[in-house]
Amino acid sequence: MARNIQSLERAAAMLRLLAGGERRLGLSEIASALDLAKGTAHGILRTLQAEGFVEQDSASGRYQLGAELLRLGNSYLDVHELRARALVWTDDLARSSGESVHLGVLHQQGVLIVHHVFRPDDSRQVLEVGAMQPLHSTALGKVLSAYDPVAHNEAVEVERQTFTVHTVTDPEGFEGVLDLTRARGYASDVEETWEGIASVAAPIHDRRRMPVGAVGVTGAVERVCKDGELRPELIAAVRDCARAVSRDLGAGRF
Amino acid sequence: MARNIQSLERAAAMLRLLAGGERRLGLSEIASALDLAKGTAHGILRTLQAEGFVEQDSASGRYQLGAELLRLGNSYLDVHELRARALVWTDDLARSSGESVHLGVLHQQGVLIVHHVFRPDDSRQVLEVGAMQPLHSTALGKVLSAYDPVAHNEAVEVERQTFTVHTVTDPEGFEGVLDLTRARGYASDVEETWEGIASVAAPIHDRRRMPVGAVGVTGAVERVCKDGELRPELIAAVRDCARAVSRDLGAGRF
Repeated sequence: MARNIQSLERAAAMLRLLAGGERRLGLSEIASALDLAKGTAHGILRTLQAEGFVEQDSASGRYQLGAELLRLGNSYLDVHELRARALVWTDDLARSSGESVHLGVLHQQGVLIVHHVFRPDDSRQVLEVGAMQPLHSTALGKVLSAYDPVAHNEAVEVERQTFTVHTVTDPEGFEGVLDLTRARGYASDVEETWEGIASVAAPIHDRRRMPVGAVGVTGAVERVCKDGELRPELIAAVRDCARAVSRDLGAGRF
Repeated sequence: MARNIQSLERAAAMLRLLAGGERRLGLSEIASALDLAKGTAHGILRTLQAEGFVEQDSASGRYQLGAELLRLGNSYLDVHELRARALVWTDDLARSSGESVHLGVLHQQGVLIVHHVFRPDDSRQVLEVGAMQPLHSTALGKVLSAYDPVAHNEAVEVERQTFTVHTVTDPEGFEGVLDLTRARGYASDVEETWEGIASVAAPIHDRRRMPVGAVGVTGAVERVCKDGELRPELIAAVRDCARAVSRDLGAGRF
């Protein structure tokens, strides 16, 4: 197999570096983090800047991600078939449940949120489209890990972080969670990722019966659960939504 | 000045190609559109695919933009100072005006929407963060063109498209619009870009008094205008919001 193009790989590594941690970095920091000569790093940064992928602060000289990434990310969403098919169904789910709805797909070692419907009330909420969620502790991530072998590999290989006292991180416990997810057809997260937050999610399949994403409802544990259990009508609504989107994607009814 | 890196420039051109027009393209189409040998194009695409910037449809073999762009675009927003400072003020503006609010910055030959607050009612609305608007016909674009010399150059050099019978496209007419914008301190767009839609926008300045963006309200012309004129209280609310954000960015009061 032919080798990939080194300058492109280095440019991608720079963008990843600027997307995490500090986010505003000087030339020396970037060069040393990626083990590159300063001249090499500068040539890549200058080209990325000319193309709009990074911006340089005129006062400090530090680099940060550029606006062209936002424009291209928006174009990615425009062509996303799963998201397009799910728009109406997720809107209905947010209305009927009174909670916020997320649509997620596997990306790298996590769940990438590709659609987010706000909780239908007047509260101030932050859009999470483009954000990542962990595979092992969220309802969306458990669904993907249970149904998609690639996601399963990622979830097993990654270091599973403890977020709360309820997070399941040990291998046997985690496989048990996935078995339960497959047996029930849905996954839950009751304060396993965020204190006070519970969610329930179900898998979306395409015409080839492949798991292509997950849809879920998220909210305050006091609203989403009753007597320590997820509210059954919420589970039913999420599974109905996942089935409706799957059918719109061409999945058979049986 | 040292030359930019050719393989990076070509990769950026591929992403731009996939972001416009067809959006799902085969190898031959990409190679011929960019005047590259198929082997060269394939090497770049393979690397972009390995980094998550493009995805290949397994059935058709066609390429489209990849999920990593959405993740990086989200990280760009996270570090966006103007957007962070404007969050609360734009929320207030949407509530007080009852209309949707957009925050835009200059990007390439247009306005890039970096924040969008939905109209506070129960209607279904499409998020426009990451979308582009024309400089010459929208209220946001006119504000940027009037106050930012770089935006002005872009707006003057670009071919100004006619969207409706109200779009001003001739050079003298357009300069007149910008003079009026500077004289009044705000810009309007009454059905110049979209039939039935009107908007009003004002400039945001930073601590060095540089125009760094524009904020505006957009809605049905029947609500935003009265007796053929923009409602004065809406103009005042937009200008108040722009001043509040500017002050938060460190701009002086005088």
